[in-house]
Amino acid sequence: MFIELKREAYEANLQLPKQGLINLTFGNASAIDRDRGVFAIKPSGVDYVSLRAEDMVLVDLDGKIVEGALKPSSDTPTHRCLYLGFKDIGGVVHTHSSHATAFAQSGRAIPCFGTTHGDYFYGEVPVTRKMSENEIASGYEWETGNVILERFKGIEALDCPAVLVNRHGPFTWGQTVAKAVENAVALECCAHMALMSMQLVPSLEPIEPELLNKHFKRKHGPGAYYGQAKH
Amino acid sequence: MFIELKREAYEANLQLPKQGLINLTFGNASAIDRDRGVFAIKPSGVDYVSLRAEDMVLVDLDGKIVEGALKPSSDTPTHRCLYLGFKDIGGVVHTHSSHATAFAQSGRAIPCFGTTHGDYFYGEVPVTRKMSENEIASGYEWETGNVILERFKGIEALDCPAVLVNRHGPFTWGQTVAKAVENAVALECCAHMALMSMQLVPSLEPIEPELLNKHFKRKHGPGAYYGQAKH
Amino acid sequence: MFIELKREAYEANLQLPKQGLINLTFGNASAIDRDRGVFAIKPSGVDYVSLRAEDMVLVDLDGKIVEGALKPSSDTPTHRCLYLGFKDIGGVVHTHSSHATAFAQSGRAIPCFGTTHGDYFYGEVPVTRKMSENEIASGYEWETGNVILERFKGIEALDCPAVLVNRHGPFTWGQTVAKAVENAVALECCAHMALMSMQLVPSLEPIEPELLNKHFKRKHGPGAYYGQAKH
Amino acid sequence: MFIELKREAYEANLQLPKQGLINLTFGNASAIDRDRGVFAIKPSGVDYVSLRAEDMVLVDLDGKIVEGALKPSSDTPTHRCLYLGFKDIGGVVHTHSSHATAFAQSGRAIPCFGTTHGDYFYGEVPVTRKMSENEIASGYEWETGNVILERFKGIEALDCPAVLVNRHGPFTWGQTVAKAVENAVALECCAHMALMSMQLVPSLEPIEPELLNKHFKRKHGPGAYYGQAKH
Repeated sequence: MFIELKREAYEANLQLPKQGLINLTFGNASAIDRDRGVFAIKPSGVDYVSLRAEDMVLVDLDGKIVEGALKPSSDTPTHRCLYLGFKDIGGVVHTHSSHATAFAQSGRAIPCFGTTHGDYFYGEVPVTRKMSENEIASGYEWETGNVILERFKGIEALDCPAVLVNRHGPFTWGQTVAKAVENAVALECCAHMALMSMQLVPSLEPIEPELLNKHFKRKHGPGAYYGQAKH
Repeated sequence: MFIELKREAYEANLQLPKQGLINLTFGNASAIDRDRGVFAIKPSGVDYVSLRAEDMVLVDLDGKIVEGALKPSSDTPTHRCLYLGFKDIGGVVHTHSSHATAFAQSGRAIPCFGTTHGDYFYGEVPVTRKMSENEIASGYEWETGNVILERFKGIEALDCPAVLVNRHGPFTWGQTVAKAVENAVALECCAHMALMSMQLVPSLEPIEPELLNKHFKRKHGPGAYYGQAKH
Repeated sequence: MFIELKREAYEANLQLPKQGLINLTFGNASAIDRDRGVFAIKPSGVDYVSLRAEDMVLVDLDGKIVEGALKPSSDTPTHRCLYLGFKDIGGVVHTHSSHATAFAQSGRAIPCFGTTHGDYFYGEVPVTRKMSENEIASGYEWETGNVILERFKGIEALDCPAVLVNRHGPFTWGQTVAKAVENAVALECCAHMALMSMQLVPSLEPIEPELLNKHFKRKHGPGAYYGQAKH
Repeated sequence: MFIELKREAYEANLQLPKQGLINLTFGNASAIDRDRGVFAIKPSGVDYVSLRAEDMVLVDLDGKIVEGALKPSSDTPTHRCLYLGFKDIGGVVHTHSSHATAFAQSGRAIPCFGTTHGDYFYGEVPVTRKMSENEIASGYEWETGNVILERFKGIEALDCPAVLVNRHGPFTWGQTVAKAVENAVALECCAHMALMSMQLVPSLEPIEPELLNKHFKRKHGPGAYYGQAKH
């Protein structure tokens, strides 16, 4: 039934270590079937080497396990919260990629300094506020999703398909989980270049709005002209 | 007809991710046949893994597509502008390689601090001025080529086969596209070492002119003695 | 007799260069059989490429060689000292991984800035005091173990399965040697991210205690809910 | 006749890109047969991928080519000068490895901050003075060797088997060329860690002499006890 969905989530998870975004068992990816309200997610703490497509756990939007012999990722409630809050997204990725995580655990947004960033993210990649003791104590992973949604009030999820959770690390998303992985790769690359840019010019201003518009719109929305027509 | 030209461009494009200069679908390489006034360039937004030699798009120096089922790279007008402005070059490469891009998006030239740099680039690698709102709004990619040519007034293209486009990233070139790829590799390596040198000695002066002359001339021009005679 | 123990130590040693923690012949891993009081350790100065499981040297807790044609690692007395001092550990790993070693040779502990660190280490990873001339002159490797134990007075070994030996580099441990390798990977990753975090925010405070508790306890102790039940 | 010598030099050259010390055609390694006063060195500007053992060029200590169809490395006079000045060495390696070259082109020695460095180099790795216009203009590569020898007055070559040539990059050596490669790997690793250590503690003092003695002597000289007896 959900064989295709599980395969999609599985392949996205495999990309994470392959792209150098993940060490050990850190991180996870999920893909949702919007019609059936079910998403497939990595099981908790399983090594990427021994992971199989059929190990993906199916969870519905109420958080109930629909199918799967293994426990889903401990971050499952965060994924579920994002699927409920961001109606247009089809996949979610969480990594501890080094440069993006350095920004996250420092509580700093990643400024948009150049067109590489502007091709993917329409402005800075924001960082959430710190979580309260209460939020940490009860329903921690669900509340992690909530502080992301709170931070995105007034921001279109697909205009900035990435966030830094304070003290923690990045989440990315996209219309598909493959796109969410691509955004995670781009995010790590932009974080690395932003850090170096700040070393070169500590007072560097963000990219000019007209250039940001040009690059983001070259790839997104009705006027996009990057890539092939059916891409 | 252009099978050899397409293969040359294709192989240069494949080198970009292989040499660690490119992530995702960033970047592109092209090779020109000067006799026929036609260049072969990567199609837009196509993954390097699925790229084939026959996918290269043939474009003439008026910007007309001569052959190809796919759309050419969105940066095609920049390549065309460089081929028109720099008569001696046979190939152009554009990457978002991390260290060179950090300099570019910071608006800083890469100083020549040592002989590694001097072996490839005869002085600092310059950065273009920022583009105006008008240049961004109409014919953006063509104007990108123009600000490069403007910056190179008084500089021989083959004396410094690289430039940093402000807020954007590097372009390199060479007598062949294979040489342009080599220059892109050398540029990224020199950018990395320049950044570290500035961390070690913030006030570091550029290389002494006599040593720069020695190293650049060891490899270029009539007195060159590096490499094999027919290299 | 000890075939399984030697294989376990051998495979842990092979992981060290594979995970990028080791260059040349730096570093070593050992695994202990607590019932028999014997541990298997890498032979001294042998290249990882030519290493075989049967080359592992068996040493007892008095330091006597039980079996093995080769000399054991020169760091063997440090391993033995740690096995005697930390009763709950089953494996020890020593590396010169670059970022962790940079902290060690600078004499700085690695602060806990985020949840990646908090998932593995319950607070900062401490650094030992410098060793005295006497300690260096006689029984240097044994005394290296002793300054580690001295630093861990009041700290549960498995709450912080890593230490930085001043001027030298990291040692990690775990309930198994495979777990000690995992901790060495996590340590290097956290050291890298801590260094970047300090570049981003020089005055960055450590993680809030409630978040550290949450993450460490998610993975360790009776309330742990990360991973699969039998993991 | 010199088949074994050429193979030794060839394999050392292949290690350079494999160990990440070399890009493009940078760098070279040579091995000497002291009895016959002949060394084998990489041909100039040949790609590592297409290099063959029989391409190694044989040169004697007067600088005369003894055998070889290709031109030897342009750095051959530097190698020759080092073989004449350092009687105990059997191999020389030159790389442009990134971190060591950053120190070299900044004109800074690499301080000995920890035991990784002390295991290989008995104190700081020195940097040469800048070369004069005359030295650059005539016999540049030979004079490069001479400024190295000048810097090593009072230093035993095998006590510190590495040097940084100002504005240029590192040379290493050893009793064999394989050992010179190992020293080049260790040097790059120590340069990287020294740079990070200076970022962590800008005023960091060098390692204490008693610890440096202990580590260097553990591996070198009559009291050495690291490694296997016949290593």
